Amino acid sequence: MGNNAIVGQSGGPTSVINASLAGVLQACQMRNAQHVYGMQNGIQGLLEERIIDFSSIIGSSMEVELLKRTPSSFLGSCRYKLPDFARQPEVYEKIFAILDKLDIGYFFYIGGNDSMDTIAKLSEYGRQVNSKIRFMGVPKTIDNDLELTDHTPGYGSAAKYIGVVMKELIRDATVYGNKFVTVVEIMGRNAGWLTAAAALARGEDCEGVDMICLPEIPFNLDRFMEKVETMQKEKKSLVIAVSEGVKLEDGRYVCELSEDATFVDSFGHRNLTGTARYLSNYVAARLDTRTRSVELSTLQRCAGHLTSRTDITEAYQVGGAAAKAAFEGHSGEMVALRRLSNDPYQCTTELVPISKVANLEKKVPMEWVNSYRTDMTHDFITYARPLIQAELTPVYIDGLPRHIIMK
Amino acid sequence: MGNNAIVGQSGGPTSVINASLAGVLQACQMRNAQHVYGMQNGIQGLLEERIIDFSSIIGSSMEVELLKRTPSSFLGSCRYKLPDFARQPEVYEKIFAILDKLDIGYFFYIGGNDSMDTIAKLSEYGRQVNSKIRFMGVPKTIDNDLELTDHTPGYGSAAKYIGVVMKELIRDATVYGNKFVTVVEIMGRNAGWLTAAAALARGEDCEGVDMICLPEIPFNLDRFMEKVETMQKEKKSLVIAVSEGVKLEDGRYVCELSEDATFVDSFGHRNLTGTARYLSNYVAARLDTRTRSVELSTLQRCAGHLTSRTDITEAYQVGGAAAKAAFEGHSGEMVALRRLSNDPYQCTTELVPISKVANLEKKVPMEWVNSYRTDMTHDFITYARPLIQAELTPVYIDGLPRHIIMK
Repeated sequence: MGNNAIVGQSGGPTSVINASLAGVLQACQMRNAQHVYGMQNGIQGLLEERIIDFSSIIGSSMEVELLKRTPSSFLGSCRYKLPDFARQPEVYEKIFAILDKLDIGYFFYIGGNDSMDTIAKLSEYGRQVNSKIRFMGVPKTIDNDLELTDHTPGYGSAAKYIGVVMKELIRDATVYGNKFVTVVEIMGRNAGWLTAAAALARGEDCEGVDMICLPEIPFNLDRFMEKVETMQKEKKSLVIAVSEGVKLEDGRYVCELSEDATFVDSFGHRNLTGTARYLSNYVAARLDTRTRSVELSTLQRCAGHLTSRTDITEAYQVGGAAAKAAFEGHSGEMVALRRLSNDPYQCTTELVPISKVANLEKKVPMEWVNSYRTDMTHDFITYARPLIQAELTPVYIDGLPRHIIMK
Repeated sequence: MGNNAIVGQSGGPTSVINASLAGVLQACQMRNAQHVYGMQNGIQGLLEERIIDFSSIIGSSMEVELLKRTPSSFLGSCRYKLPDFARQPEVYEKIFAILDKLDIGYFFYIGGNDSMDTIAKLSEYGRQVNSKIRFMGVPKTIDNDLELTDHTPGYGSAAKYIGVVMKELIRDATVYGNKFVTVVEIMGRNAGWLTAAAALARGEDCEGVDMICLPEIPFNLDRFMEKVETMQKEKKSLVIAVSEGVKLEDGRYVCELSEDATFVDSFGHRNLTGTARYLSNYVAARLDTRTRSVELSTLQRCAGHLTSRTDITEAYQVGGAAAKAAFEGHSGEMVALRRLSNDPYQCTTELVPISKVANLEKKVPMEWVNSYRTDMTHDFITYARPLIQAELTPVYIDGLPRHIIMK
């Protein structure tokens, strides 16, 4: 079998996805992979044979350090869904021909649930054609919605970013002492893990957010207005965290109520935006208060200047563990994180069958939501707090964090 | 004359305004001011006698350090414009009666051009009634639009934030390799200093932003579209920085073209928002490209986790210099920053007459804009780069930056 490795990145970027790339790269090099290749823009670029050889790109250990600190996907990404191989075998034949030409023995794909679908299909097809190539999935998503893993690399840093900026926005919003409602829109289509992270802001030095609206909980505009009105009698400045994916009881997204168009990508995802704006306008039209909407937008997924060291370390580890497993003969699996204890926080890696992860979404458990459905319980904080611990300082050059990019 | 000092904060918050407060506080204490008072919510709170004594609030040097690192205005802020004293002398009589009751000898106001109007009026009224109270202005604004000072405390940190997030957004926006236009909306009603800071992103490791639209330059939608179309033939992912205040040649704000309401505050400022969204929708409707709008919103002015050490040091210095000047007999002046050299960067403080600062706005000089009016020249970079140098690490506790708040 081939002694070369190839790695790709897929799905939405995170601020630590390149730490997983560094983990795969270094572990393959340590195991004497002759060449480690990268596919540009994931499986889509592989099909177009847009392939780089890492040896000519990442040489020094300084470059590896910069790679760990560079947000977004160094290799580029894609949202390409592989067709069913019964229907379009030619796509698979092409991919395997390219892999054979490159003498690939180890194939790594860093991504979320859609990307794990790619690994599931490739490894299944490989098994049917008796390929020796080993396929491993490396988890990554700020959404934290992968099954069978305690959490996903990328979530800790995004959660830390959200905790930090919620504290800052709360400070900013109280400054005039007037009636004010700030609605902050946070990513997470169907799973509210990121929005829940707004609960981390509360502490000795921060009042915390006043309401958290998860996509798991049907949203009722009247109840929302009632809560806002009641709360504002006690406290002038309210800060509310809403998921971009909150839906009405009839299944429509709240953002669909606004005038802006929505559209559907090739995975069937809607591009959701405008939820916070809709809600802040809704409040402003009905209550005597100033309002503001803030969308954390892509800022929350690419904030390389504000990562969790715990997260970036684990991102690196899952990359290395995937390489180790592949070289030891595993295929068709994903590296998962298993929490051993909370205090002290200890976490290890394990392997899980890829078919049990692909295309599934893990939601926030309802036991971690308070009885009013407006806040997270202590159990959620216990779960999330360890994931945002410690920082990895960027390498600042001339005032800005240094990145490494493909030239 | 009174031996007590009082200090207030006014206008929009910044991430370093509390460093100036710390500077005033410590310099007054060193000069043996008996009491240093703080007015809550600026002059508005003073009129309502909402006053705190710092001795009961900020004691330890650790608390002073936390104060320097806490974004937004510790004392709260206001946007209260003092009436003309010829018309409403009773407001001034009330203020001076309260100051006399507190035995105030030194009065400090940290703010932007509107706040300097407050200092100008109070010191002028004081002169007319032979008050011994000394009034000093301490400059603060992320907008960098104050006259007679090389730059304003608050600008360097906001500029650094903008440089950092533009680099991150550029990385994020290139990831799929598809046609994509990202329009980023940056604060600055009439002066484009903050939007110009997007030019700092370009470097060895970053392509930089593709277009910068300042409010100083009349905006033409057709020319904008033409440039976007031309540029996208060469480069698929474009990132464009626009000021919230860009105006058409006929004087209307671009954001007024959208459906969203605008309103006017008591200083006559419009609340501008929706420029980036309007432009990204405009592009999406006319070109075959995906688009996204990102509003940096209040995130850019309260990012205490990402300050410039140069800025925070200078913010502290201008506070101290104001106290020193007041104790030495000055009144009716503002502390300004005067740049001595660029390389090495050296900057000192000086005093300027408050009447020459109040209510004026310093714009970006047109010599610092390129001939296409789409980018900044090297001279701007030479001006801005020193202001974003070095970092002040937050005190992270349990994963989040620690602040200090009024209990």
